[in-house]
Amino acid sequence: MPRPIVTLLTDFGTRDWFVGVVHGVILSRAPEAQIVDLTHDIPPGDVSLAAFVLEVATPEFPPGAVHVAVVDPGVGTGRRALCVAARGHYFVGPDNGILECALAAPGAQAFEIREERFLRLPLSRTFHARDVFAPVAAHLARGEQPPVLGPPVADALRLEPRRAVSLDGELRGAVAYIDRFGNCITNLGEEDLRHAFPGVPPEELAVGIAAQWVQGISSTYAGVPVGTLVAVIGSTGRLEVASYAAQAAARLGVAVGDPVSVRRRPGGTSGSRADMVWR
Amino acid sequence: MPRPIVTLLTDFGTRDWFVGVVHGVILSRAPEAQIVDLTHDIPPGDVSLAAFVLEVATPEFPPGAVHVAVVDPGVGTGRRALCVAARGHYFVGPDNGILECALAAPGAQAFEIREERFLRLPLSRTFHARDVFAPVAAHLARGEQPPVLGPPVADALRLEPRRAVSLDGELRGAVAYIDRFGNCITNLGEEDLRHAFPGVPPEELAVGIAAQWVQGISSTYAGVPVGTLVAVIGSTGRLEVASYAAQAAARLGVAVGDPVSVRRRPGGTSGSRADMVWR
Amino acid sequence: MPRPIVTLLTDFGTRDWFVGVVHGVILSRAPEAQIVDLTHDIPPGDVSLAAFVLEVATPEFPPGAVHVAVVDPGVGTGRRALCVAARGHYFVGPDNGILECALAAPGAQAFEIREERFLRLPLSRTFHARDVFAPVAAHLARGEQPPVLGPPVADALRLEPRRAVSLDGELRGAVAYIDRFGNCITNLGEEDLRHAFPGVPPEELAVGIAAQWVQGISSTYAGVPVGTLVAVIGSTGRLEVASYAAQAAARLGVAVGDPVSVRRRPGGTSGSRADMVWR
Repeated sequence: MPRPIVTLLTDFGTRDWFVGVVHGVILSRAPEAQIVDLTHDIPPGDVSLAAFVLEVATPEFPPGAVHVAVVDPGVGTGRRALCVAARGHYFVGPDNGILECALAAPGAQAFEIREERFLRLPLSRTFHARDVFAPVAAHLARGEQPPVLGPPVADALRLEPRRAVSLDGELRGAVAYIDRFGNCITNLGEEDLRHAFPGVPPEELAVGIAAQWVQGISSTYAGVPVGTLVAVIGSTGRLEVASYAAQAAARLGVAVGDPVSVRRRPGGTSGSRADMVWR
Repeated sequence: MPRPIVTLLTDFGTRDWFVGVVHGVILSRAPEAQIVDLTHDIPPGDVSLAAFVLEVATPEFPPGAVHVAVVDPGVGTGRRALCVAARGHYFVGPDNGILECALAAPGAQAFEIREERFLRLPLSRTFHARDVFAPVAAHLARGEQPPVLGPPVADALRLEPRRAVSLDGELRGAVAYIDRFGNCITNLGEEDLRHAFPGVPPEELAVGIAAQWVQGISSTYAGVPVGTLVAVIGSTGRLEVASYAAQAAARLGVAVGDPVSVRRRPGGTSGSRADMVWR
Repeated sequence: MPRPIVTLLTDFGTRDWFVGVVHGVILSRAPEAQIVDLTHDIPPGDVSLAAFVLEVATPEFPPGAVHVAVVDPGVGTGRRALCVAARGHYFVGPDNGILECALAAPGAQAFEIREERFLRLPLSRTFHARDVFAPVAAHLARGEQPPVLGPPVADALRLEPRRAVSLDGELRGAVAYIDRFGNCITNLGEEDLRHAFPGVPPEELAVGIAAQWVQGISSTYAGVPVGTLVAVIGSTGRLEVASYAAQAAARLGVAVGDPVSVRRRPGGTSGSRADMVWR
């Protein structure tokens, strides 16, 4: 039998003992679990960034995987603890939007975690990853089904969707994430581009970011001079603006949430400057 | 059979190969071991900080867990290598105080690691985590008992205890650790407070730190304005001074070892200033 | 049966989701695999540093271990993907020199990874760790043999060897790596020293680095005053210049690639200054 997988995604960092304690709680209750640390370096309290990472990090895991996501500035208040069954996986975390990708999945089922026999008691007020989410994850890894945890939840907190908007022949989105290499990953998917510009080859599009237009969407970062800005469809299937072997985001002064725009390149390879000014 | 757990706590960082090599040595000798990295980000050489983290990180692990703790500025000198059996766990590390929490436990038994058949030979002078502590941990994980490692030790090096002191109606302790969130975790436990102030509700106490008095001990960080100082009993059962969604330690200018004091709030909720001056 | 080991060495960092996704891909295909993160903190794009870490980190692993090394600035270009069988282990990574330690081993056999049934399809242009190297590692962990992956490769890209040179009674090498503690690890092995200075005890040698001569090669960092420069044979069997409890590299202003030289100490313990000037 394959060992059940439990993944962890938090803003705890790795220099204190918090992550180690969570491992201990899980392994005490599910000694056969295989724990994978997705990342613990979410900026403290940044729920929406954690929600994005959870969305892009989890699809590769096999059916039955349990994902624990804890960025929890409301710990100790009345916010609910959730378990969501979606896409053949289980997701546990606070009811603050961090589980957005699970809640948005077709057929998702959410439950409030209430049954005390699955918790580590007495509950602390400040460390529910240890007292609530880790022990519940261990029980799920051992085969418990979400409905035993507590009542169904129909009104889980959802994140504002940052959707692409098409206007005047321009597709508008935003920077969703900036990775270690300084790549600016947008919320514009390959499908959004195909839908907004049917039949237009990617090299005939231009990507506007931080008052610049990047001409053409390429297929790879490499093969261009160091420092050149390049727009690519990245490994998550989203449009990215990168700078080969250089930090694009820092050079452009771009932050998460900044606007990104895509339009057709005018005529040939060099567009008229006036037409290309960023609005 | 559950897989034996081996935890690692070092000051090696994670950017070099040291931790990877330790994993390799353990898995070569105990392929069924489950290795958990508690943290490798102890500041280089800070034995007492490592001892604190070992104390708070290890209780959640199941019986039989083997804990390897290596912050070892004396490696290559004559300092002994120890194995301590305590609280149903095994602890291995240098004889420099890092195993304090094990040595202080009732019924603890310490042994010097000397038997060469459990080591990786020839010994290097600079990497005993690889040559001594990892192979010994693997052998313990496989069922060897500590007495086979070498002679009992009765005079292991102990850390100066930083104990709470009660004086003139004031309970005095110190900051023991500052975590990633800037929370100042003290050496004052919930029991110390109950003992010093019998029958006094926590909200009637005041906590002095860095020339400020924090009024009342709350039950959670959350629900107060961002930046407000708050005193709570944290998840380790110790008094902490935190600042919701802000770095308390940096704002207060507090460092590990700084004094912390607890007294009764005078009269009602607002104390007379003169009485509250920090001494 | 021991669980097959797969190690990972990348420049991905640990704050994004890349490493988590690689774990997911491997565990989906080889649920029984034991994954060890050697490090993910190679500076982005630094292939030769990664090659050095791979060389020193992997020998402790048991036979059959699979090592995935991905620092891959050429991803998405025509560079080949390789599997090298060497020293009883398997190494997978791009054909850019990162697998140098495997290619240099006696009897090494290299194969180009081409068989699509071992890959995650469709291939992205930017994340071959996920699409090529992780799934191939999983298949090797499950017992596939390298020749099924694709044709043999006889002209894999090799790194320039940085070999020690003996000249005028002086052995010349370079700094190969600077670790977390600021230790300067050279490419001069204990054998190079014995060969260049047969019969000379280490304490009669002097090590030149950054316009200084360190007198004598000691056996340990410890036991000298804090900050004192000391030359030792480190745990990898190479000459290191360290500074006890201080960052030697930063204090000396030394970087990877800087020259290091060894010669006999003139006469007694204090050499004539003129003779000791660094050339």
